[in-house]
Amino acid sequence: MKFLNVLEGEAAWPPPLWLMRQAGRYLPEYREVRAKAGDFISLCLNPALAEEVTLQPIRKFGFDAAILFSDILILPMALGQGLRFAEGEGPRLPPLEDISLLKLERAAGVYTPVIETVSRLRQSLPTDTALIGFAGGPATVASYMLDGQGGGFYRTKELSYARPGFVRDVLNILTDATIEYLSAQVDAGADCVMLFESWAGIFPPAQFREFVIEPNRKISAALKARHSGLRMIGFPRLAGLMLGEYAYGTGMDAVGLDSVTDIRAARAVCPPGMALQGNLDPLLLKLGGEALEAAVRALLEDVRGFPHIFNLGHGITPDVPQAHVARLVELVRQSK
Amino acid sequence: MKFLNVLEGEAAWPPPLWLMRQAGRYLPEYREVRAKAGDFISLCLNPALAEEVTLQPIRKFGFDAAILFSDILILPMALGQGLRFAEGEGPRLPPLEDISLLKLERAAGVYTPVIETVSRLRQSLPTDTALIGFAGGPATVASYMLDGQGGGFYRTKELSYARPGFVRDVLNILTDATIEYLSAQVDAGADCVMLFESWAGIFPPAQFREFVIEPNRKISAALKARHSGLRMIGFPRLAGLMLGEYAYGTGMDAVGLDSVTDIRAARAVCPPGMALQGNLDPLLLKLGGEALEAAVRALLEDVRGFPHIFNLGHGITPDVPQAHVARLVELVRQSK
Repeated sequence: MKFLNVLEGEAAWPPPLWLMRQAGRYLPEYREVRAKAGDFISLCLNPALAEEVTLQPIRKFGFDAAILFSDILILPMALGQGLRFAEGEGPRLPPLEDISLLKLERAAGVYTPVIETVSRLRQSLPTDTALIGFAGGPATVASYMLDGQGGGFYRTKELSYARPGFVRDVLNILTDATIEYLSAQVDAGADCVMLFESWAGIFPPAQFREFVIEPNRKISAALKARHSGLRMIGFPRLAGLMLGEYAYGTGMDAVGLDSVTDIRAARAVCPPGMALQGNLDPLLLKLGGEALEAAVRALLEDVRGFPHIFNLGHGITPDVPQAHVARLVELVRQSK
Repeated sequence: MKFLNVLEGEAAWPPPLWLMRQAGRYLPEYREVRAKAGDFISLCLNPALAEEVTLQPIRKFGFDAAILFSDILILPMALGQGLRFAEGEGPRLPPLEDISLLKLERAAGVYTPVIETVSRLRQSLPTDTALIGFAGGPATVASYMLDGQGGGFYRTKELSYARPGFVRDVLNILTDATIEYLSAQVDAGADCVMLFESWAGIFPPAQFREFVIEPNRKISAALKARHSGLRMIGFPRLAGLMLGEYAYGTGMDAVGLDSVTDIRAARAVCPPGMALQGNLDPLLLKLGGEALEAAVRALLEDVRGFPHIFNLGHGITPDVPQAHVARLVELVRQSK
């Protein structure tokens, strides 16, 4: 599988291609299924519908990888924390006060449908399409759990200094739960797994090491010990100057890059031969035209000869015209 | 002057100390003057009152440097763009549509009171207290001008791809205006100048080079050509992996570091011997206690033997107790 070969360090050409949040609202067929499912969480927990929306972008654009349709906050919900998605507002959780609320032993029972979606997908996907399982990174998931929503993560930042023991306890539970959750996804047929540390960039260096790098390392070590040959992608968004430490320190096979990261600078700080993933600005995919064409060509030139997975630097937005996605796929696939 | 010696590369000990936004709402005497002035812009344009609030933190804490009390958006206002500060909302400007609105030749007439504040300050400050003049970096100021407010800077990001010529025109005008503005501050007695590129981190690498590094380089080159021996500090907040290119490419004597930057990693990518400024997390100054003490001691250890200016990684917030500031000053000054 071309996608997995790149994770092993092969400089495949043209590079394999998928898009973060490729199963999403920019697709009318997604919006149709989403409406049928009722709310967003119900869609995540409905194996037939989650399978369907995962497959939609594969059918339409033939991406090299499908990513399980789910959400990083399904795991804290499975652990016992309330979760709702207010329309147009993003996720809302009751800010975590009491750690005893979280029950590791109940989680698997709640996320069973997600694991079933993985099983179905491995059956229904073309054999040359990689299936990516995923979870949120513990620091990112904890930030939502502690603040109750996205944004400035003020409570998380304050607790990280004022009650580091409490934050550590939350991270430890999440780390253990994430290992089980991702392990179940691999058992069900995921070809590789990706850890989304989407808010890694909010943490000062000492906390970045303790809250981001160390839990990510534990997860990768535990999963690789259980699943021989498993490949993992870490995505420490906005890691900045901490990227190299993350890449060397976590045992990931590849790192995803956000759009403000210079890919050559990233390569210089990551282990030689490590696969990189990214990092086209999603805004270019919305705008299209000459700006998109030029940026795609420039990125392709930058990654030529290196193990690379073509992707965005952040999720595709609902306002992206499908024609722009089709053009992107064409540009990458026709690249000589 | 110890402060200037550090900018020249001397590893003074203990390091000189000041705080971004040290003249601010955490001080009751500031709030009193602010109330007297009426609105925030009137305070910036009132030399007697602006002088007074600049001096307040020097009197109280004996910082090694005073920074002119003003705002980075005074310059676009002087160029002709409307500006208001809604209470508790931050700045608001009518998003710039028409570049002909900006008149370089009218700016000096509007910012004259700011220059007068500088003259007064150089007279009234102790001779061993450095006076820092400042302006916003062109990319940061342009972002406010194009979006009309802080936040996601969505319009700026979109225009940067869709109408780069327009953005370039705005940056060119701002670059020229900033050179005149800072030059006038130096003529009036500023001992050094600092360029606040507070939103440098929103730009992908190619734009970072064109919109941040190149205008910052032009400003530093022009000012140093006019003012022999002038020292400059650049603050490319959230530059991440672009920090080294910024430090090498702009001709700054020192760079300010935000709180998510690892100071050793920063040193490794900056020119050897370059002074660094920062980067205590302002949140620690709010929280105080053992977390503050430990972080200050750790930062002091990290910078020992290197040219360093002790500061925060971002501005001090209104909720910081004065006792914590006093303790910080004590910790730094008593450091052996």
